[in-house]
Amino acid sequence: MADPTDTAPLRHLLTLEHLSRATLETLLSRAAALRPQALGHGARDALRGRTVVNLFFEPSTRTRSSFQLAALRLGADVLNFEVALSSTRKGESAVDTLRNLEAMGASLFVVRHSDSLAVTELAAHAAATSAVVNAGDGRNAHPTQGLLDMLTIRQHKGEDFSGLRVAIVGDVRHSRVARSDLHALRTLGAGEIRVAAPAALLPDAAELQGTRVCERLEEALEDADVVMMLRLQRERMEEGLVPSLAQYRQAWGLSAARLAGARPDAIVMHPGPMNRGVEIEDEVADGPRSVILEQVANGVAVRMAVLLELARV
Amino acid sequence: MADPTDTAPLRHLLTLEHLSRATLETLLSRAAALRPQALGHGARDALRGRTVVNLFFEPSTRTRSSFQLAALRLGADVLNFEVALSSTRKGESAVDTLRNLEAMGASLFVVRHSDSLAVTELAAHAAATSAVVNAGDGRNAHPTQGLLDMLTIRQHKGEDFSGLRVAIVGDVRHSRVARSDLHALRTLGAGEIRVAAPAALLPDAAELQGTRVCERLEEALEDADVVMMLRLQRERMEEGLVPSLAQYRQAWGLSAARLAGARPDAIVMHPGPMNRGVEIEDEVADGPRSVILEQVANGVAVRMAVLLELARV
Amino acid sequence: MADPTDTAPLRHLLTLEHLSRATLETLLSRAAALRPQALGHGARDALRGRTVVNLFFEPSTRTRSSFQLAALRLGADVLNFEVALSSTRKGESAVDTLRNLEAMGASLFVVRHSDSLAVTELAAHAAATSAVVNAGDGRNAHPTQGLLDMLTIRQHKGEDFSGLRVAIVGDVRHSRVARSDLHALRTLGAGEIRVAAPAALLPDAAELQGTRVCERLEEALEDADVVMMLRLQRERMEEGLVPSLAQYRQAWGLSAARLAGARPDAIVMHPGPMNRGVEIEDEVADGPRSVILEQVANGVAVRMAVLLELARV
Repeated sequence: MADPTDTAPLRHLLTLEHLSRATLETLLSRAAALRPQALGHGARDALRGRTVVNLFFEPSTRTRSSFQLAALRLGADVLNFEVALSSTRKGESAVDTLRNLEAMGASLFVVRHSDSLAVTELAAHAAATSAVVNAGDGRNAHPTQGLLDMLTIRQHKGEDFSGLRVAIVGDVRHSRVARSDLHALRTLGAGEIRVAAPAALLPDAAELQGTRVCERLEEALEDADVVMMLRLQRERMEEGLVPSLAQYRQAWGLSAARLAGARPDAIVMHPGPMNRGVEIEDEVADGPRSVILEQVANGVAVRMAVLLELARV
Repeated sequence: MADPTDTAPLRHLLTLEHLSRATLETLLSRAAALRPQALGHGARDALRGRTVVNLFFEPSTRTRSSFQLAALRLGADVLNFEVALSSTRKGESAVDTLRNLEAMGASLFVVRHSDSLAVTELAAHAAATSAVVNAGDGRNAHPTQGLLDMLTIRQHKGEDFSGLRVAIVGDVRHSRVARSDLHALRTLGAGEIRVAAPAALLPDAAELQGTRVCERLEEALEDADVVMMLRLQRERMEEGLVPSLAQYRQAWGLSAARLAGARPDAIVMHPGPMNRGVEIEDEVADGPRSVILEQVANGVAVRMAVLLELARV
Repeated sequence: MADPTDTAPLRHLLTLEHLSRATLETLLSRAAALRPQALGHGARDALRGRTVVNLFFEPSTRTRSSFQLAALRLGADVLNFEVALSSTRKGESAVDTLRNLEAMGASLFVVRHSDSLAVTELAAHAAATSAVVNAGDGRNAHPTQGLLDMLTIRQHKGEDFSGLRVAIVGDVRHSRVARSDLHALRTLGAGEIRVAAPAALLPDAAELQGTRVCERLEEALEDADVVMMLRLQRERMEEGLVPSLAQYRQAWGLSAARLAGARPDAIVMHPGPMNRGVEIEDEVADGPRSVILEQVANGVAVRMAVLLELARV
C-alpha cells in the first residue's frame, strides 16, 4: 500500500485505489485550471510531438472521444487503435501491440479492456518511457471517471468533502466507475458514503468497508448532498440478477419525487450513457440538479491533467 | 416559409428549401473564393481551436472525407463518430450523444442519418452555441451536395441561371440529392427544370411543381445545358420499381449517342458513387463534358464555406 | 527492366524489383537521417498542406499506423479510408475512389490490397500529381517493409552487404515481404541469400534465382549474419501445405539452440505480427539478437523518406 502522503510523480494511472490524497488533490486542481483549454481555447503546445494512442480492446466512443480531444487540444498526435478491427485477428498479443506502438514513438497509452486487470498487466510490460492510462478495465477501475466525478463534486460542494453525504445507487457490483468513485471518496474523506442496490448487485463485503449499505433508495437519498446513479446493463436481467427493467425502475429509479428526499441543493450525477426511464427519469436527468453534462466537460479537463502528469510536462 | 430576401446568418444548414437567393449566392461566392484552400493551400487558422464532429448514423466515406478535409484545412480538430460502431449499442439516444459531444467542447456537427428529418430533429436539441450541417438524411435533403452542384453549374454557365435548361434524370423519388438540387435550382431561377424518370421513380406531384416532367430521356436531354444523372440504387430492382438494370440502362442510361441531343457545351453531373454501365456509360463519365470530379473538388470548398458561415467566422 | 544506375525521381513506390542500387541507397540514407523525426521530434512542416490517404482495401493496423505517424510527423493531413467499411459497398470501383480523393486535393496514396498487382493497376490510373505507395498487395510486394528491413541490416552490419549471409526462413511462397526483401538484397549485393522452407512453401524456381535453397533450417542458419523469419499464416494448415503448427515449429521454428548455429553477432528479424511458439520462440523474439522492434521504429523513418521522395519535397 502506498504511503498516503506520497506525492511522487505518477508512473501510470491504473486505479485510484492507492493514490494519496495529495496526489488526487493536485490532479483535481490541475484539471480545474485546464477547463478553458479543455473546451478548445488557449495554447496547444504542451504535448507537441508526443503521440497518444487510444488502444481500445473494448469498443467505446465517448471515453475515446474525450481522451482524443484532450490530447488534440494539448497538441499531441493521436492514433486510434481499435483492436477488434485489427491485427489481433492475426493473433498478436496485447503486449506485442504495445511494444510495436512504443517502437513507433508513441509514449502515452490510453487503454480500455473488457477484462479486469488486463490494463494493469499490460502496463507491467510498458517501456520505461511509456505511461499507461486505464480507460476502463472490466469491473476493476475507471480512474479518470473517478477523478472527473470528484472534480464535479468539488465544483459544487467545495474542496472539503468531510460534511458530504454521497449516495452511490445501482449496480455497484459490476461497476468499475463505482469502484473508482469509492476509492476516491474515501481518500478525499467524504463524510458518509452510502451504497444502495438490490442485494444481487452489491459488491463483496470487503469493498463496502466504511460505507453505509442502504436497502432502499429512499434511505440512501435522505438528506444526501450528492447522488451518483449507475447505469443498469441489460445483461443483469438476462443473468437473472434483476427481475425486470420495470421492477428495477420502480424500486431503484431516480424520479423527481424521490429526489425530493435529498438536500435541496443535492447534485445528481451519472457516468453515462444513461438508460432513461430505467435508473433515471428524464425529469431528473435534464432537471436543475443534474450535473451530468458538467461531468462530461470535466472529463476532458481531467484527461488533459492526467496526460500532462504522465508525460511529465 | 422564410422571407426570400432574408440574409440573416444561418443557424444550421438542414435543407436548401427555405434559403433565400441572397443566402445561396453568398455561400456560393464564398465557396468559390475558398477553392485554393480547399485543395490544401493557404492559411489554416480560421477554425483553430474549434472541434468539428462528423456524427454519422449511416456509413459514408466520401461525404465524411470531404467534410473532414474541409475542417482540417481550416485548422479545426475533427472527431469521426460512427454511430453503428459505438455506444448507441448501449442504447444512448442521438440527442444524448449530441449533448455529450457539446459538453466536450464540440460546436460544429456534421450529421448523416438514414431517416428523413432525423437531422432536423437532432438540430432542434442543439445548444445555442452549436450548429448542425445535414450531411444527408434519408430521402429528405443533402444541402451541401445541392450547393456544390450549383457552384459547379456557376463555374461553367455563369451566375445567371435564367437561360439554363437543366435535366435531372433518374430516381428522383428516393434522392435527397435531387430534392436539394430542385430547391436550389428554383431559388436561383433556373430557366427550365426537367425531371426525367420512369413513373415509379418520380416524386409526388407537389414536388414536381414548376418542373417539366419528361417521359423519355431523349426529351429531357434535348438542348439541355446541364444534365444531372442520379445513382440508381439496386434496392429499386428488389422493390420491383425497376424491371432490371439492363432495361433501366437501355431506357435511362446516359450514353454519348444520347448526350449528342443536348447542347454542344452541355455539362454532365453525377453526385457519385456512379453505377457505370447502369445510369451512365464510361464514355460519358470520363468524357469531355463530364464535370463529375469538379463537383467533388467543389464539395470541399462548399463545406468550408458552410462551416465558416455556421461558425460565424 | 530499369537501368540499374537510374536515379530518376520515383513516380510511385510499387515494388523494389526494378529500383537501382543508387535509388535504394539514397532512400535508406534519407530514412536513417529521419530517425529522430520518426520518433516525434523536430520540424513538422515538410508536408504541411499535403493530404496523405491511407487507402486500405485489406484491414491492417500496424502498417497503417506506421504510415499515419510518418505523415503526421511531417505535418501532413491524414485521411484513413478503410474500404471494407465504406462506399464500395455501393459498388464504387477502386479507381473512382482514387479519383474522388484526388479531386478532394489528396496527392499521396498509401494503398493496401489483398490482390497481387491491384495497387500497381490503381497507380496506373493515378493523376500526374499523385503518387502511390504500395503498402502490401496480395503476395506481390511490400516495398516499405523491404526498405525498413534493409535499413535495419545496414544499422547492424554496415552499408556493404557483400560479405553477408542472409537466411530467409518460412513461407516465402505466399510472402510479399519476402519478395521485397529478395529484390532489395539482390540489388544491394548481399553475399549469399539462403531461402529455407518446406517444399510446399517455396516459391517458383524463377524467384529463387541467385539464392541458395536450404532444405533444413540448420543449414540456413549455419554462420548466418542475418536471419529473417516469416510469419506462418494459419491458412497454410487449412490448405494442407503444412501438416500442423506443432510439426512446423519442430522443423522450422527458431529457438535459441538453433540460433546458436548462426554467427555470434547474427541479428534476428521478423516483419510481425509474430506467431510466438510457431515460427519463433519467445527466447529469440525477446532475446539479445532480436532487432524486431528496431524494424518497427525504422518503418516510420522509411515511410517518411518515401513520402518525402514521392512528394518531391
